[in-house]
Amino acid sequence: MTEPASSGNSGIQQSCDEQASDERADGKQLGRRRALTILGAGGLLVSGSAGRTVSAATNASGPRSWREAGGGFSNYGTPSDDSRIIRWISAEPSSPGTGASWTPLHELEGSITPNGLHFERHHGGVPAIDADRWELRVDGAVRQVVHLDLDSLRQRPMHARFAFIECGGNSSSLWREQAVQAPAGWLHGLVSSGEWAGVPLFDLLEEAGLGSDAGWLIATGLDAAGVTVSLALDTLPADTMIALYRNGEPLRVEHGWPARLLVPGHEGICNVKWLGRLTVADRPAMSRFDTVSYTDLGRDGIATRFSRVMGVKSVITLPAVGDQLAVGLVAITGLAWSGAGRISRVEISVDGGNTWDDASLDGEPLDRTFIRFRFSWNRSRATPVMMQSRAHDDAGRVQPTRAALLGTHGPNHHYHYNAVLTLGIEADGRVVNVHA
Amino acid sequence: MTEPASSGNSGIQQSCDEQASDERADGKQLGRRRALTILGAGGLLVSGSAGRTVSAATNASGPRSWREAGGGFSNYGTPSDDSRIIRWISAEPSSPGTGASWTPLHELEGSITPNGLHFERHHGGVPAIDADRWELRVDGAVRQVVHLDLDSLRQRPMHARFAFIECGGNSSSLWREQAVQAPAGWLHGLVSSGEWAGVPLFDLLEEAGLGSDAGWLIATGLDAAGVTVSLALDTLPADTMIALYRNGEPLRVEHGWPARLLVPGHEGICNVKWLGRLTVADRPAMSRFDTVSYTDLGRDGIATRFSRVMGVKSVITLPAVGDQLAVGLVAITGLAWSGAGRISRVEISVDGGNTWDDASLDGEPLDRTFIRFRFSWNRSRATPVMMQSRAHDDAGRVQPTRAALLGTHGPNHHYHYNAVLTLGIEADGRVVNVHA
Repeated sequence: MTEPASSGNSGIQQSCDEQASDERADGKQLGRRRALTILGAGGLLVSGSAGRTVSAATNASGPRSWREAGGGFSNYGTPSDDSRIIRWISAEPSSPGTGASWTPLHELEGSITPNGLHFERHHGGVPAIDADRWELRVDGAVRQVVHLDLDSLRQRPMHARFAFIECGGNSSSLWREQAVQAPAGWLHGLVSSGEWAGVPLFDLLEEAGLGSDAGWLIATGLDAAGVTVSLALDTLPADTMIALYRNGEPLRVEHGWPARLLVPGHEGICNVKWLGRLTVADRPAMSRFDTVSYTDLGRDGIATRFSRVMGVKSVITLPAVGDQLAVGLVAITGLAWSGAGRISRVEISVDGGNTWDDASLDGEPLDRTFIRFRFSWNRSRATPVMMQSRAHDDAGRVQPTRAALLGTHGPNHHYHYNAVLTLGIEADGRVVNVHA
Repeated sequence: MTEPASSGNSGIQQSCDEQASDERADGKQLGRRRALTILGAGGLLVSGSAGRTVSAATNASGPRSWREAGGGFSNYGTPSDDSRIIRWISAEPSSPGTGASWTPLHELEGSITPNGLHFERHHGGVPAIDADRWELRVDGAVRQVVHLDLDSLRQRPMHARFAFIECGGNSSSLWREQAVQAPAGWLHGLVSSGEWAGVPLFDLLEEAGLGSDAGWLIATGLDAAGVTVSLALDTLPADTMIALYRNGEPLRVEHGWPARLLVPGHEGICNVKWLGRLTVADRPAMSRFDTVSYTDLGRDGIATRFSRVMGVKSVITLPAVGDQLAVGLVAITGLAWSGAGRISRVEISVDGGNTWDDASLDGEPLDRTFIRFRFSWNRSRATPVMMQSRAHDDAGRVQPTRAALLGTHGPNHHYHYNAVLTLGIEADGRVVNVHA
């Protein structure tokens, strides 16, 4: 990776060719100094034998990209084949709009999920909504029914905030006995994070005027599944919004265009896409999304309903299953989040949870939003270890061990898996998922 | 927009049709209460005459999207025609890769610029770089030359942060005498903000080992313009990075794939795209990007070089030129940023700068990053006003008036326009750009 500086200067030649004319003209502004254009072996540089650089120039011996006009502009940019990474899709062949696409967490960096890679979980596919005819209706136990079209929503006072959305069924394969050998995104990628902007829900409810028996908000989507979710008004976050934008731009069709509900920290199903109606009521609708699915099974076989707030959780994204580590310094990184507040601490263990060291965080954690953690591990010997991350939040919660989580719910649960995850690093450096 | 609640319940009927079966089954879990499926006129709801909601169901009288299977999944999502907004392109017809595309600030919300709408300013088009053969070379006044390919960069310890990039020539039409009637993005859209992740520059320089005469860093791109920029090492931000990711995903080709320099707060040209070489030197290269362009003209005709740090600035994005405001409450919003630190305050004037009121900010401002501001203005009468925003930063800087900025630079300058901007609201509510 490195070489002595002197070898970088082999082949130095002085040049005053045409292509260097700009630089020579500029060089005059150095005053009495003559700006020599000295080209290195690579054609680019510019470095005397004393390591002294006096000017830069391009010439015919450089890379071809210097000599060919580059490509032009586009109205809207998309990734090229070179740089594109993709979501894995798990859909029912007989019903291609029912299933999920998974955010490739192990191939992303930073804390933002770009709009093209936000996970999707649809129960009846992506509907075609005519935004010109669409309206949001707020009704039920209210003093007056409110109708809002997209233009009138966009002209109202808005708010923007960062928030993750995680499907209640994310990481569900971890409930099974056998560890699945797939990278983090394909197991834990039903979660994404970014910035949402929209109209505060409680501004609309105030305008509609809550009736004295208002206890629940029932949100219904316009998709073929007619997704209907009941939310207790007294536990609904004050910053719940009718989201119209994600990461700056208008919501995409697959994310709920023209409007979706955003309930920061609540499981994905609460963030109803293609929102059509909000009904205030004195009791929940008890839809199938309130009862049959998205409930928490206990070890006694009794399910708890309306456990909407997501747990505190962390996932190591690098190293990833399939990597092979050398002996030496290993850059460990990953993501942590909590449905109840800010991440206060992330710890790393490289001995299966016996000892823990604090990871560093990229900036100040935001409320109910991804934060990236980092840890430099000196893999000094080619011996097997178990690597784990463990997140804490400012609500005082900490990720449970797998044994503790299974102790609460038994092995037949499906939702809300947030136990500490374990990567096995084998003696030869190969990375595998293990249960520990 | 509103109607009495009772009218929303006309046409209510009880229904136990097939499509409601899920909800009826769920209703049993209410215990002894019978969950009635009561359909409103819209087909969806569910609201008794007392405003009491007992269940939700979909049936054949609802919107067509409830009855048609929706669309499926994609590996990578892109906006549909419905939701897409676009960049305006100003390129030379004879050289389609030289020019700019502009972020449509007036159509975005929140503080993030999505990757597809980041502004672009290219001097020689977008080059095709073979990432498998690409390497970054650090050389010049160093103890050892360092070569890094993409894989080895990705395995190093990284850091992520939010940062805006603004072209030094953004808002340049404002130097002219005549106010241009175009929305904010087409005048001020050579600026974008988002999250960048990459390898800290000074980690690489430490590895290379700075020579005793190291004073400047000369960064060169691989595009046909051979963009070369000289940066004084003693003023280069400590968090300067070799950026590999933006908003989570690998850099796109048009943003500098596989790697670009990110110098938070410095003018766009410093953030060299398609980075090929970093050379440490005892003096600047005095390339044309150091001298001919990106310099600051004074009223005396003398240009100041290396004035890289961008000013403190704000732009109102709503209302926008072309809008027509009614009398009543107007939601004003916009973006503010500073190349020297955090925005500490944004003020709004609706009387041409005589009096100012504080705008609210969406969360805590981040260092050298967009922050969105908001202000509710009661337009009580149909009289003309001049609307302005004025930003302050924690370095103690404030946006100058147009008169003060022109007083410093004269009218023939091209770069670093950051004076207070003015929207004229005419008596009939029409919004125009004015100079004030």
